Formats: sequence, C-alpha cells, structure tokens
Amino acid sequence: MLNYKAPASLDRMFAAMADPARRAMVDRLARGPASVSELARPLSISLPAVLQHLAVLESCSVVHSEKVGRVRTCQLDPAGLRNAEAWLQHRRTAWERRLDRLGAVLDEQKEPES
Amino acid sequence: MLNYKAPASLDRMFAAMADPARRAMVDRLARGPASVSELARPLSISLPAVLQHLAVLESCSVVHSEKVGRVRTCQLDPAGLRNAEAWLQHRRTAWERRLDRLGAVLDEQKEPES
Repeated sequence: MLNYKAPASLDRMFAAMADPARRAMVDRLARGPASVSELARPLSISLPAVLQHLAVLESCSVVHSEKVGRVRTCQLDPAGLRNAEAWLQHRRTAWERRLDRLGAVLDEQKEPES
Repeated sequence: MLNYKAPASLDRMFAAMADPARRAMVDRLARGPASVSELARPLSISLPAVLQHLAVLESCSVVHSEKVGRVRTCQLDPAGLRNAEAWLQHRRTAWERRLDRLGAVLDEQKEPES
C-alpha cells in the first residue's frame, strides 16, 4: 500500500498553482516584492479576491507578506515552488533515465548486426 | 492588463497534480509502464475511480494509454510534467537571481568600509 496521502502540502501547492490569477501573482512577484494593490492592478479582480488568493499562496509557502503601516508588501518565498518543482523533476527524470537505458539496450542489440 | 488566462493547460496540469492518488499514479509510472489494475492495486480505490484519474492525467498530457486486447497499458508522457516544472523553475530562478544581484550590491556597498 502506497502512502499516497502523505504530502498534503503538495496538494495545496499544486492546487494553488492551478489558478491563473494566482500564477499571475507569482509571476509578478518573481520580478520583485509588491504591495497588494500592485498585485491587484493588472488582474482586474477585486481587492478582497486578491487577498483571498494571497492567503492561499501564503498557506503553501509560496508567498509571504508583511504589513508596515497601511501597506502590506508581498514577497516570493521560493520554498513552496521548489518543493513542487522537485517533485515533478524527480518523476520526469526517472522516466527519462529509464528511456535512455532502454535506448542503450536496443543499441547494444543492434551492434552485432552492423 | 496581464494576459493571465492564457495557459489553460497549466490550469489542468497543476489541478491534476493536486490529487494524491493521481500523484501516486505518476509516481508508479515514473518507474515504468503499468496496466490500469497495476495502477489501482496500491491505491485501494475502485477501478472506475482509477479510470477517472487516468482520464484527467491523459487530458493534460502527463500519461498516455493504449489498449491491446483486454489490457490498457499506461505510460508516462513527460511533456506535461516538463511544462509545469519549467513554469515553476522560471519564476523561482528569476527570484533567486534577483536576490543574488541584491546580495552583490550590498557586498559592494560594504567593501569600502572594510
């Protein structure tokens, strides 16, 4: 029995990235910190909606924010991104290595004929 | 205005990866092709549920399957994984490069003092 229920953080992380508005926010923050209203501006969604998306991104360690005075500044926190990226990369490269080995075996089998 | 609605395929791909059963299926397939019942066995979910998850994985180009006789064999198709991985990596490295540049500027400012 696979322990396939373990990493709930990956559930949250991938679900967070499945929303185009949240990806647009991450995209913006990859270029530098931004206030909530700077994040909202290009998205044409309400400020409360942006705050909800922000809460989702914070819950999976992709963004953290800090309020100084009346301005909340958001910043990318690459930990969450790195987790999800590593998960995908590990499966992709395992498969590609498998294909490479298969290719090598086929090449070896061809050689005596040539 | 950001064109944040464009890559619907990323929506589907990240949503697909947000489910632990589907991640377990990808995990299994990274080690080699498998039949649907081989995929179902460690998951303790019904065969129809596995077929539904499989349809989701096929719809975002993470898995393809082929039926020969009565057996449907599934295989990883790394295209979908690579897309999502590249998206995450691009944002993460943009942010890390930004931090590196910031670090370099701070180091330069420190040097005259030392």
